[in-house]
Amino acid sequence: MGGNRLGKIFQVTTFGSSHGKAIGAVIDGCPAGLPLDANDIQRELDRRRPGTSEITTPRKEEDKVEILSGTFQGKTDGTPIAAIVYNKDVDPSAYESIKYKPRPGHGDYGWISRYGHYDYRGGGRGSGRVTIGHVIGGAIAKKLLETFNIRIIGHVTQIGRIKAKRIDPKRIEEHTLENPVRCADEKAAEEMIKLILEAKEKGDSVGGIVEIIVSGAPAGLGEPVFSKLDADIAHALMGIGAVKGVEIGLGFKVAEYNASEINDEYYIREGRIRTLTNNSGGIIGGISNGMPIIARIAVKPTPSISLPQRTVNLKSMKETTIRIKGRHDPCICPRIVPVAEASVAIIIADHMIRAGFIHPCKIKT
Amino acid sequence: MGGNRLGKIFQVTTFGSSHGKAIGAVIDGCPAGLPLDANDIQRELDRRRPGTSEITTPRKEEDKVEILSGTFQGKTDGTPIAAIVYNKDVDPSAYESIKYKPRPGHGDYGWISRYGHYDYRGGGRGSGRVTIGHVIGGAIAKKLLETFNIRIIGHVTQIGRIKAKRIDPKRIEEHTLENPVRCADEKAAEEMIKLILEAKEKGDSVGGIVEIIVSGAPAGLGEPVFSKLDADIAHALMGIGAVKGVEIGLGFKVAEYNASEINDEYYIREGRIRTLTNNSGGIIGGISNGMPIIARIAVKPTPSISLPQRTVNLKSMKETTIRIKGRHDPCICPRIVPVAEASVAIIIADHMIRAGFIHPCKIKT
Amino acid sequence: MGGNRLGKIFQVTTFGSSHGKAIGAVIDGCPAGLPLDANDIQRELDRRRPGTSEITTPRKEEDKVEILSGTFQGKTDGTPIAAIVYNKDVDPSAYESIKYKPRPGHGDYGWISRYGHYDYRGGGRGSGRVTIGHVIGGAIAKKLLETFNIRIIGHVTQIGRIKAKRIDPKRIEEHTLENPVRCADEKAAEEMIKLILEAKEKGDSVGGIVEIIVSGAPAGLGEPVFSKLDADIAHALMGIGAVKGVEIGLGFKVAEYNASEINDEYYIREGRIRTLTNNSGGIIGGISNGMPIIARIAVKPTPSISLPQRTVNLKSMKETTIRIKGRHDPCICPRIVPVAEASVAIIIADHMIRAGFIHPCKIKT
Amino acid sequence: MGGNRLGKIFQVTTFGSSHGKAIGAVIDGCPAGLPLDANDIQRELDRRRPGTSEITTPRKEEDKVEILSGTFQGKTDGTPIAAIVYNKDVDPSAYESIKYKPRPGHGDYGWISRYGHYDYRGGGRGSGRVTIGHVIGGAIAKKLLETFNIRIIGHVTQIGRIKAKRIDPKRIEEHTLENPVRCADEKAAEEMIKLILEAKEKGDSVGGIVEIIVSGAPAGLGEPVFSKLDADIAHALMGIGAVKGVEIGLGFKVAEYNASEINDEYYIREGRIRTLTNNSGGIIGGISNGMPIIARIAVKPTPSISLPQRTVNLKSMKETTIRIKGRHDPCICPRIVPVAEASVAIIIADHMIRAGFIHPCKIKT
Repeated sequence: MGGNRLGKIFQVTTFGSSHGKAIGAVIDGCPAGLPLDANDIQRELDRRRPGTSEITTPRKEEDKVEILSGTFQGKTDGTPIAAIVYNKDVDPSAYESIKYKPRPGHGDYGWISRYGHYDYRGGGRGSGRVTIGHVIGGAIAKKLLETFNIRIIGHVTQIGRIKAKRIDPKRIEEHTLENPVRCADEKAAEEMIKLILEAKEKGDSVGGIVEIIVSGAPAGLGEPVFSKLDADIAHALMGIGAVKGVEIGLGFKVAEYNASEINDEYYIREGRIRTLTNNSGGIIGGISNGMPIIARIAVKPTPSISLPQRTVNLKSMKETTIRIKGRHDPCICPRIVPVAEASVAIIIADHMIRAGFIHPCKIKT
Repeated sequence: MGGNRLGKIFQVTTFGSSHGKAIGAVIDGCPAGLPLDANDIQRELDRRRPGTSEITTPRKEEDKVEILSGTFQGKTDGTPIAAIVYNKDVDPSAYESIKYKPRPGHGDYGWISRYGHYDYRGGGRGSGRVTIGHVIGGAIAKKLLETFNIRIIGHVTQIGRIKAKRIDPKRIEEHTLENPVRCADEKAAEEMIKLILEAKEKGDSVGGIVEIIVSGAPAGLGEPVFSKLDADIAHALMGIGAVKGVEIGLGFKVAEYNASEINDEYYIREGRIRTLTNNSGGIIGGISNGMPIIARIAVKPTPSISLPQRTVNLKSMKETTIRIKGRHDPCICPRIVPVAEASVAIIIADHMIRAGFIHPCKIKT
Repeated sequence: MGGNRLGKIFQVTTFGSSHGKAIGAVIDGCPAGLPLDANDIQRELDRRRPGTSEITTPRKEEDKVEILSGTFQGKTDGTPIAAIVYNKDVDPSAYESIKYKPRPGHGDYGWISRYGHYDYRGGGRGSGRVTIGHVIGGAIAKKLLETFNIRIIGHVTQIGRIKAKRIDPKRIEEHTLENPVRCADEKAAEEMIKLILEAKEKGDSVGGIVEIIVSGAPAGLGEPVFSKLDADIAHALMGIGAVKGVEIGLGFKVAEYNASEINDEYYIREGRIRTLTNNSGGIIGGISNGMPIIARIAVKPTPSISLPQRTVNLKSMKETTIRIKGRHDPCICPRIVPVAEASVAIIIADHMIRAGFIHPCKIKT
Repeated sequence: MGGNRLGKIFQVTTFGSSHGKAIGAVIDGCPAGLPLDANDIQRELDRRRPGTSEITTPRKEEDKVEILSGTFQGKTDGTPIAAIVYNKDVDPSAYESIKYKPRPGHGDYGWISRYGHYDYRGGGRGSGRVTIGHVIGGAIAKKLLETFNIRIIGHVTQIGRIKAKRIDPKRIEEHTLENPVRCADEKAAEEMIKLILEAKEKGDSVGGIVEIIVSGAPAGLGEPVFSKLDADIAHALMGIGAVKGVEIGLGFKVAEYNASEINDEYYIREGRIRTLTNNSGGIIGGISNGMPIIARIAVKPTPSISLPQRTVNLKSMKETTIRIKGRHDPCICPRIVPVAEASVAIIIADHMIRAGFIHPCKIKT
């Protein structure tokens, strides 16, 4: 059924685990003729790479990508694109002691329940490291979308109780480039970093909110009633490890309003139909309306903390405690930004083909 | 690609529109041997039926279901179950005047952009009426799950700014039976009804929040990395027309916490592994952990309001205004409860089979 | 997994059984704007209808189709098209005696093994009657393909050992209209009818071969490596009840040749690339080459015969004999023609969209 | 839509082309707990490897497989298994001259029509070399099936007009091990080799027939009406490059018989229901009946021949001739044997899980 596949026509199948040999993705359904080389993917991988600042895990991984198939003379050729990253800085020793002790907040217990035989090293395939596969797929999707003038940017809007000011979407990208927490509000960013470092010092971690904005997408994307564009975006974003909530446009705030206050009214500018407000976040009734698509995700604090926690020993079936050593992110939000962008990019690319805006076999721009 | 299908093994394909001849669903992948008759479906349809109280639309529909296939001698036989409901109280006249004017907050413009030729009567297939298909599929899923002691209940937790008190989940069902707004907190329910009637009088509508609780689901449901249980639930729930946000467990609140505050620690009771808290809402790392599964959705106010709104005429490409007549719900939350239950039921049933807890071909209890 | 679904984008989901209430199909993924009414489907259903000549079963079914959804003002609107046929002439009494005795050559034993609880009346969903669903889907596919000047015709080329002469494909349609056995060679047709009546008199049945020809399909259809056009055609055709073999172009004869004898060489006529011969039957390497697509199927003699046969009683687990009464076709080939055409039409329509020749959302001719 | 994927639950996605960097497969949906190492795959790859006898292509490839993911401590862990083979003996120079000249009998023209930008070196992804992906997937499927006592063997039954005698299925495996043509009838094998060498000398090639036998499969495999076991087998086998026909059991011979002659009658032996004959090849009505499953494929002569052939120049759109140099198999049948086995193994493994005989998440033997 493809638990490891995202997308219906533009399909990304991923594989690999935290401490296995390699992590990778196979992209089937990318049209032929798209210029693509390893740098297009490497650039995105570098954005999610660990060890780049003091607020991320110290695990050192070069995350060098290798394209194995699907391109010819610098362009995609319509055949599946396989790309892999070998795991290098593998240190499973830290995990032996916790072999039978599911870590609170981690998927360990669920994986053991489901599969019996489970790679517990670093969370195995439950590790955030597997999002390398998402990013590989997303990098190709982004390249394809850029050809059609669609851009996807993500940024951190909240860490703990610190909320960023609303920033002009056009300036988000430059702003987030400048700070490791990827928050476009520079003042809030400083406070966020401080908060993260405090949590780190205590052996704790902190949650936050990430927003993704898609600009340039045409009206007409989405397949009601079940494969609505927002439904597919929610699916992709909720599928990222630490995400516990997804909202589109006004999101949960809609509960508090009357329709007369938030319905997006139509008007015409330069011959094009637009809405006065964008409370619906670019998607109404499951189909895009040509306005920017806006999604936000709630990211829980990384569950790996060095403070002692109660757990059970699955072998002896006795209660016990656990202290997680390993190397972890005190806040995963900044590194989730490129992963969330990638996830949304895959969905948009898929729907662009499904809606006939991109030819399924060959690029015609 | 199946925009009208939900589920991978337990598959629900729906069809029909607001003012067409009939609405229905085909359920493929339900194991043989499940006792099933029309009453099992009718009971659930009656819960979403319009015209049952002053806070719902006055459209009168009997919504009588007819099973066309898939059962033999009172039991499912493993072949596709088709069931239909004929539309009776069809009054398209109200829609002629708005043929070329997309209604703010409605999917009209997206549908026209996507398909060109579009049934504008009552929103066509974009109408809430198509959730009859969800409920047919969900009723069968519920019946199947009950055989395995899994129960799904939904209730309204917020309307406008009125929030319900936390109620013992075991008492939700009886409490919601007693009031038309399906809120288990009786005092809040009264206020909610008042608020809805106020909105109705003004020709306006109001939003809210609905919570779904699944009890009895085993640990081990969910297919990481992309078909996680929470991802699939989010997909199903975000696919319901008016939903703008989905959250699991603590949801968006996780942003404000440290891991040490919200990680669900394990303990053992009566030989069974449980968690002390259930902040993760029964799903960690995309796999269920045996605790109750808790999801909440943000429901926007019904966009059909009789107040004047700005829109455009697609034929003349001129700006204009619109007043929607028709017959509409001043608050859709109560009627979304059975639809959301149905959507979650389909996902849980599907994953029960996918995880090997239910045999794919025949019921073995 | 969709055992009752054919097609990836143009998806046909069917339901219903021989003696149930109704048989039908839901077509999801047909673009909007295609003119369609019940007559388009009825015409094809009438071609497979029983009781029209002395060489078919005497079961009398009007097979009147009703479209429930998916069209608006005489055109498809991009939403799922549901269409049903009620079963009328249902006589299950003939089947009570054989409840526990699997009929040789029939699927009964497999169905019981798989599902346990099984509708044994007339073979249930294993009955040839379920191909009404194929024909409904195929009729819509044909209508869509005709818009793009693609035509699909089938004819009987062999019954028993009687083989039809090769007929100019352009004259097949008119020729087969004139005789009930649907063989374009009039002389062979006469002998075939005689052979069928002989078998009928003896309470026996006879097999044959049916050929399907697709003209007008462009080069470029088919998705290697697994969803090759010939692979998908083989899948659809082998999925018809009585079919035991499928071949493309020269088919099994290729075994006896050298490449130098059968490779289809290229030439140019009127600026268009063509092949001198068409031994590959229009498909090479899994992709169409613009030449007519030619497929043939081996159809076994209808297994329902009134002669005594050995079988077992599944309840007593004792050996016994069986004489099948019921009403059956002494040769199913003529009635398989429209079913095979429908199956191929669905595949070609699906691949036309998948390859970008037909827009997935709206007809642009 | 997954043109590069085979199987619904046990899913094999393949990638790579003849002269690209690597060829590989990702297997998603293999239950956890299956003992698996590279040797299990290598053994099967060695059977399809080129350059092992004088009747195969002289291209030298070691075809050393590397498992990248999906196993832990010598067993599968339920996560996707990725395995790759690097291409070594790549000599694209032979192909430059034919860049714009589609080779008769090859897919070149179809690929160009479909994708525009096409890797013409060695047929690109249209090359037989991509069946390495099939064999990787099939090796894992076979290992899984062996755990459940299901075995799959293939053998050559015809080359040109030389037909093998019927051999006791139990002795096929040992017999085919002994000769490079993989024909179990030793006398016929000798003649076949002679015929192949004659064709080779002339710069020509020859076709044949390969038979696949599945023993030990239970009754109940197959999902009518469209995903019948024989339909899925036909799909998988017709998807192999050179295959132009597929038949089950008696296959095309059924056309010539009456039902009374070929219906498989039931009897009981040792408490188990069996059929007296197996004309249906183990599948009736699309579901297995517990008898050996028998499929045969028609394999065309390798189209790459060094004799001059007519073709066209796609750039100048002029007619021309072509002589194919490269390194090719004068008869592909022996090397198709492991590929056909692999294809069938994937389908049977998939259906074993789909029918509930194998648990979808963990091996329980």
